[in-house]
Amino acid sequence: MLTRIDHIGIACFDLDKTVEFYRATYGFEVFHTEVNEEQGVREAMLKINETSDGGASYLQLLEPTREDSAVGKWLAKNGEGVHHIAFGTEDVDGDAAAIREKGVRVLYDEPRIGSMGSRITFLHPKDCHGVLTELVTSAKPSADHSSAEH
Amino acid sequence: MLTRIDHIGIACFDLDKTVEFYRATYGFEVFHTEVNEEQGVREAMLKINETSDGGASYLQLLEPTREDSAVGKWLAKNGEGVHHIAFGTEDVDGDAAAIREKGVRVLYDEPRIGSMGSRITFLHPKDCHGVLTELVTSAKPSADHSSAEH
Repeated sequence: MLTRIDHIGIACFDLDKTVEFYRATYGFEVFHTEVNEEQGVREAMLKINETSDGGASYLQLLEPTREDSAVGKWLAKNGEGVHHIAFGTEDVDGDAAAIREKGVRVLYDEPRIGSMGSRITFLHPKDCHGVLTELVTSAKPSADHSSAEH
Repeated sequence: MLTRIDHIGIACFDLDKTVEFYRATYGFEVFHTEVNEEQGVREAMLKINETSDGGASYLQLLEPTREDSAVGKWLAKNGEGVHHIAFGTEDVDGDAAAIREKGVRVLYDEPRIGSMGSRITFLHPKDCHGVLTELVTSAKPSADHSSAEH
């Protein structure tokens, strides 16, 4: 079950300038940055609020690391703007399977690794009224880390 | 201060079909519907989660009521998809004034009435890295209604 707006993914040409725009204009601070080579993006997560399911909502600012990445091709066609929206769930595998059963194309056979160790998949925008839609299950605190505390 | 993702505004050609897509695919239910003649839209709000500032995050599905409305023109050019994003604040007037001071174009001289009696304004997408950005202050329970309870 999808229980929150997890993030809004925004494609930009220059991550540092865009981060600075969000900081200077609204006071939003960077919560996390990473490079995801598989997705071909360098990204910054700005945490906006926490959510009633125990998660949070972020803006995800995305700069392509190569022109032939999905985000790179999208930017070349569309310019900067909202690239996708993402809903949070405890069970991305189960929800993706159920949604595929309903005839919506799910872009990955198995979820892949997204921001901050999450597991993600995408739904085809043409099956979702034009909206590229991501499903996200956040990473749990690692078992190794937890056990080290005891 | 902007304290939540208030909603994601999604433009669609047929509100009833799009509402049914979100219900059938994800189980999201309609929380509120209205027609905003000034904005030229018929809309449905789907509540996704509550937020740590005491508000909530919604999907706002928008069908134009006339072709020459902002959403109607946007749809004719872009097709269905994410039209804008909105941040919630306790003080849309103060935040809009502060953001205007920073050189970002604010589209209305004074906030106008948005969904569910909120007060809203928009920032020019060309000043916001391609993202049409709305600021929203939710309606308080009406004073008349509150006093009637006492």
